[in-house]
Amino acid sequence: MNNQVKSITKKSQDISGWYNDVIERAKLAEHGPVKGTIILRPRGYALWEAIQKNLDIKIKDLGAQNAYFPLFIPYSFLEKEKTHVKGFSPELAVVTHGGGEKLKEPVVVRPTSETIMYDAFSRWIQSFRDLPLIINQWNNVVRWEKRPYYFLRTTEFLWQEGHSAHANNETAQKMVETALKMYVDFYQGTLGIYGYAGRKSESEKFAGADMTLTYEMLMPDGKIVQGCTSHNLGQNFAKAFKVQYQDNQGKQQFVSQTSWGLSTRSIGAIILTHGDDNGLVLPPSIAPIQVVIIPIVTKSSDNHAINSLASKAFEILEGHNIRVKLDDSDQSIGWKFNQYDLEGVPIRIEIGGREALKGEVSINLRNNKPDYTKSTLEYLAENIERLLEEVQTRLLEKSKQFTRDNTRQADNYPQFKEIMNTTRGFIEAFWCEDPICEAKIKEETKATTRCLPLGSIEVNGECIYCKKSAKFRWLFGQSY
Amino acid sequence: MNNQVKSITKKSQDISGWYNDVIERAKLAEHGPVKGTIILRPRGYALWEAIQKNLDIKIKDLGAQNAYFPLFIPYSFLEKEKTHVKGFSPELAVVTHGGGEKLKEPVVVRPTSETIMYDAFSRWIQSFRDLPLIINQWNNVVRWEKRPYYFLRTTEFLWQEGHSAHANNETAQKMVETALKMYVDFYQGTLGIYGYAGRKSESEKFAGADMTLTYEMLMPDGKIVQGCTSHNLGQNFAKAFKVQYQDNQGKQQFVSQTSWGLSTRSIGAIILTHGDDNGLVLPPSIAPIQVVIIPIVTKSSDNHAINSLASKAFEILEGHNIRVKLDDSDQSIGWKFNQYDLEGVPIRIEIGGREALKGEVSINLRNNKPDYTKSTLEYLAENIERLLEEVQTRLLEKSKQFTRDNTRQADNYPQFKEIMNTTRGFIEAFWCEDPICEAKIKEETKATTRCLPLGSIEVNGECIYCKKSAKFRWLFGQSY
Repeated sequence: MNNQVKSITKKSQDISGWYNDVIERAKLAEHGPVKGTIILRPRGYALWEAIQKNLDIKIKDLGAQNAYFPLFIPYSFLEKEKTHVKGFSPELAVVTHGGGEKLKEPVVVRPTSETIMYDAFSRWIQSFRDLPLIINQWNNVVRWEKRPYYFLRTTEFLWQEGHSAHANNETAQKMVETALKMYVDFYQGTLGIYGYAGRKSESEKFAGADMTLTYEMLMPDGKIVQGCTSHNLGQNFAKAFKVQYQDNQGKQQFVSQTSWGLSTRSIGAIILTHGDDNGLVLPPSIAPIQVVIIPIVTKSSDNHAINSLASKAFEILEGHNIRVKLDDSDQSIGWKFNQYDLEGVPIRIEIGGREALKGEVSINLRNNKPDYTKSTLEYLAENIERLLEEVQTRLLEKSKQFTRDNTRQADNYPQFKEIMNTTRGFIEAFWCEDPICEAKIKEETKATTRCLPLGSIEVNGECIYCKKSAKFRWLFGQSY
Repeated sequence: MNNQVKSITKKSQDISGWYNDVIERAKLAEHGPVKGTIILRPRGYALWEAIQKNLDIKIKDLGAQNAYFPLFIPYSFLEKEKTHVKGFSPELAVVTHGGGEKLKEPVVVRPTSETIMYDAFSRWIQSFRDLPLIINQWNNVVRWEKRPYYFLRTTEFLWQEGHSAHANNETAQKMVETALKMYVDFYQGTLGIYGYAGRKSESEKFAGADMTLTYEMLMPDGKIVQGCTSHNLGQNFAKAFKVQYQDNQGKQQFVSQTSWGLSTRSIGAIILTHGDDNGLVLPPSIAPIQVVIIPIVTKSSDNHAINSLASKAFEILEGHNIRVKLDDSDQSIGWKFNQYDLEGVPIRIEIGGREALKGEVSINLRNNKPDYTKSTLEYLAENIERLLEEVQTRLLEKSKQFTRDNTRQADNYPQFKEIMNTTRGFIEAFWCEDPICEAKIKEETKATTRCLPLGSIEVNGECIYCKKSAKFRWLFGQSY
């Protein structure tokens, strides 16, 4: 155990160095021996467990059932959907040997499970009565990563992938939108991260989809994290895998399908969005420890009274299902303050001689509130509950404010380039939807189309790049 | 949707055919496209979710923290512990290509995680203050399977693997025993499956362990399922991976380690142990549906009164956190009875005209109780709670009785062979502990040493095979 918490790189000076420092010092993760893999240490995995616990309820509320499909997929399955195999081939991990023998057909480690699941769907679905079928799985997937980055780009990652089959495209499209709405609620309500929901461009959509929705979030360095995606797969896979049903007229029809996922990269977004120079700042709704109680005992203080008050405070909060820790270990007070700041614990309660005398506790908020509030035990639970809610709300507000402040309209290309060379952030700009302009812009500015925000209104404009007619302002930005 | 539930193979006539039938008809699982892999369908995965939920609490009570380590392990890691690599090499899946390129060093898909975890432990552990370190992970592992069998032998399976490091072998051994005790409690208390806890022979212990404890369970066909294992790894891996700590005298010491796991094969044991000719029989503690309510409406009955009583019964049970389903769909009554029997729902409540008139419900137990009991709504919750407990207890008692009835002493080898040729089951027999006798017995009778039961008393005996001196009666049996 290390008695000193070394200071970490300043977030404002070097966000990339800060990010690595925070992750390693807070013991969230470390690099695995195979390039691009990471070890989720207990404190990092606890965040994923909290995400799973919260999101799994919402997913089941959609009517989904959890299942588990095999890790290994025959390569021939991927080949059945031409766009899909083209998109994923460069990222595949391939198993060529099993049980001491060379395999007749190499198998791939799943990069996503559309193909293996829809092969099963073709057996499970017979009649319109079997629809909609909504299946979710929590699992690990592998996409070989050449430029790994903690959580945001890793060769193996954990995620959930939801998959559904519907009688027609209308109900499928509704599912795609409902799933995205679920993610938006989750990011905003649970993780406190603002962002834009919208549609991906043709070149940025999922390999095999007709249409992809996304939630795009701005990070403090002006770069953007794609938080999740929700795809309308149309009948592309249904035709490749013969997923058919008999409609109520007795006619064979292809199903319409969707898939949608959220992964451990969400943890990267939490760290980047909320953290500060002292370390992590965790939203109360997923913080493994929401409140830490630190008795401040000295040689001259009434330590019996202090510890007794601390124990009472602990019992009260625990009785209200608040995730509370009482740290009366013999580490120094300074070490404890630094450590729980680093871990991102939302609320710190301090109890010293003065507090014991008055029968009240001092409350300090991790998130940008330097001043203390006081509470008696009588109102402690309700005060803490209110503060946890306030912190949760304030994190989202801050993220929203920052995102809004850094979403700029560019009316011409020089202005666009200027923004991308300085502050970055989101740019709203007219684009003609020609992939050639999109590619040129990316080449020259590193900015890609992030999405066309939902609810965008059609107007007459001209493409920021080619000046041809454009109907919508798209969101551009540099992606992580 | 199939309106008819076809009759399944009789368990008593062909247990293997019955087992496959039940799994496929109850939609627990089906075969995956890559040999030996299985798809856990929603109803099968729900059992794993219930197992996880129950066992995860017990694991955290041991002081373990959950984490997640990478799927891919460099082959060189396995080679560091000689016995380990020798044991696992024949079962490995090997990735030779990643991201479109041939890998410099092939990586294996984890068959178990000792090596990759202890490499990390060597960085995480510095001082005696870091001990014990107890880490658990829920994940998928791959061991190439040449003779796959639903749940019991699959190329990929889901499990939890707990790993710990201790200051000395005494505390490590205590951990090994505590972990096994947890599993015994879980199998008996939660899954209702009796078995014997004991020590594995030298040839049957884990590759890399000094000592392995196991829980061995007798299935209805006289064959045995190993339910879990708990290993004392001594300092074998600690030395291979240099997992050291500074003791309180400032001296460098190797840690002593343990690992212990329980997998989806437990689902196979549940099916085989409790199921009957009508399908699954699930222990109430893990049944996704504990009670199904079926209104029995006819043309002449007072259907308003029936449905109203059914809704009230549903609300009462749901209010008591009983997992209850009300099936008022338009499937036939016969279909519903068969279907919920097949699914193994522990309790069925029937409400027809007579029940509605009297304001009481009829209760039928899935597990071997053909007669009905009645209950008014007033006492419904407590009656159901009591019955669920009774069913849970009775399943364990039945399993215990069957196991005891089929555990026989063999005093000579002809008797041993006779038992293995007829009833099978467990045999208690003296064995000299020479692996040559063990191998001969296996060759001639298919029976292996299952374990030396904990608490066995040393006596003077002679080996059933070679007649040399033997100290203990070991348990033998044919393993799945």
